[in-house]
Amino acid sequence: MVTKFLAYLGHINIDIIFRVNKLVSSGSVPIEHEEQVYGGTLGNFALIASRFGLDFDPYAAVSSETHADYLKLLASRGLNLDHVKVFQDSRGPFCYIASDRNNQLAFINQGPNVEWKPSQESSLVDGYRILHFTTGPRHEYLKIARKSSSDIVFDPSQEIYLYSESELKEFISLSKIVMCNEQEYDRIKEGVDYSDPPVIIKTMGSRGVQVLDNGSTVNIPARKVDNHYDTVGAGDAFRAGFYTSYSKDNDIIKAVKYGIIVAGEVIRTPILKFDKPWSEIESIFSEAGY
Amino acid sequence: MVTKFLAYLGHINIDIIFRVNKLVSSGSVPIEHEEQVYGGTLGNFALIASRFGLDFDPYAAVSSETHADYLKLLASRGLNLDHVKVFQDSRGPFCYIASDRNNQLAFINQGPNVEWKPSQESSLVDGYRILHFTTGPRHEYLKIARKSSSDIVFDPSQEIYLYSESELKEFISLSKIVMCNEQEYDRIKEGVDYSDPPVIIKTMGSRGVQVLDNGSTVNIPARKVDNHYDTVGAGDAFRAGFYTSYSKDNDIIKAVKYGIIVAGEVIRTPILKFDKPWSEIESIFSEAGY
Repeated sequence: MVTKFLAYLGHINIDIIFRVNKLVSSGSVPIEHEEQVYGGTLGNFALIASRFGLDFDPYAAVSSETHADYLKLLASRGLNLDHVKVFQDSRGPFCYIASDRNNQLAFINQGPNVEWKPSQESSLVDGYRILHFTTGPRHEYLKIARKSSSDIVFDPSQEIYLYSESELKEFISLSKIVMCNEQEYDRIKEGVDYSDPPVIIKTMGSRGVQVLDNGSTVNIPARKVDNHYDTVGAGDAFRAGFYTSYSKDNDIIKAVKYGIIVAGEVIRTPILKFDKPWSEIESIFSEAGY
Repeated sequence: MVTKFLAYLGHINIDIIFRVNKLVSSGSVPIEHEEQVYGGTLGNFALIASRFGLDFDPYAAVSSETHADYLKLLASRGLNLDHVKVFQDSRGPFCYIASDRNNQLAFINQGPNVEWKPSQESSLVDGYRILHFTTGPRHEYLKIARKSSSDIVFDPSQEIYLYSESELKEFISLSKIVMCNEQEYDRIKEGVDYSDPPVIIKTMGSRGVQVLDNGSTVNIPARKVDNHYDTVGAGDAFRAGFYTSYSKDNDIIKAVKYGIIVAGEVIRTPILKFDKPWSEIESIFSEAGY
């Protein structure tokens, strides 16, 4: 059987964002501005990685009723949607995000994610070199990680708080790489078995990325970005750059540098409009003198 | 020119209701159950009144993008949608309602309502016997009420809190009838000119309806309803029953009784499924011995 480079399991989400004057916990709040955007950990990743021609398959659960246009867009980007499971009966996943510029209040509708059973996909046992697990059904993900012969990358993101201590410990022990931000790292570090630790890639926003590999620490600074548009999806962009480089050169540190470059490019534009080909990212990499 | 009985100005709304475990003012809240329902003061009224063949025209602003199916449904009920202004660019109106069973938090997107100019409709000057103003653009509504030769019914509902004291006073002075609930009445009573008061119809839920007419007060008890499904839209149902009777018999007290009967029938079923013809309402009226 032909082994593909990467399976990426996560959310293909529709985000409905409303700007309000002041968040409260009950009563009536006028919406000043509302917009609907394509998002989700996997959705953002796919929109960016598809520009680079990365060899990967998305795995997610979506509703036919609410996600038809989003799926059309992803298909038009040349993605293989065979493993995006389309449910007829439930709507979502959605995230309603009310923001008053200081605080956010997010209402999350998991939609078909609650009934999705990716552990039934035999392709995840030995069809890929790497399985990347980000947000999604953690019990299913753990089941897959236990039986797969692929390298496991664990990246629970904002859903890290749903994991019990023992689930976290087990998932980390099954992983070759763990990705997290600084807050998430506080939970991750308690679950690491330091006799056999994974490589930990810790993103720190404008302060760059730290790679922790069996006692050694490498700090890679962020790039200064002008014309900053929106940092939403910067983490997903980092992962798209990371994997595109890693698939070519198999070098984690180099891949992190590419991830930083792509994140810096993506935050200058709405993700949907990002269209730089990989060759241009390579030029920026050369000029950056990394 | 032929004068129609009633123009009804209000909201044709899509309500997105999410059930959550506990409402907070920031952070992340999982949605346990989400549903989208057709609502709005005018939308509910129209769904019920259309079953009775009431001679009325709806006036509202909606988005072509979000309200296409809702409009199709209203058209299929035989309603004249000539005065429902369809906007191409903005979405809504929407109401996102998070509910934890004790409290509600509503986010209201007025959508095209903010640009709607019903005062430009000449039909509202002398095309109807009655103009009913419920939720919607109050400055526009006042402009129409000032110049129209129709009888004015003022029914600001939950948007009463947007009116300034002087706006309220003026609207009440222009009105033949004012409709309100008990909380709204606290604001209404301060705006009434008692040398020339309108008829005030005050709905009080399970405690019935009070009709205040120039010093006299008539109390009409509610009916006990078994198989209660949902009180959402009960007030709009009351108004549908009220006007259908009033258009036939021109008797406010009798019309209030019919309103109470229709409200009692509608809360036993989702509004969308309500399908009792007027003849059946008349039978219930006779049996009730009102």
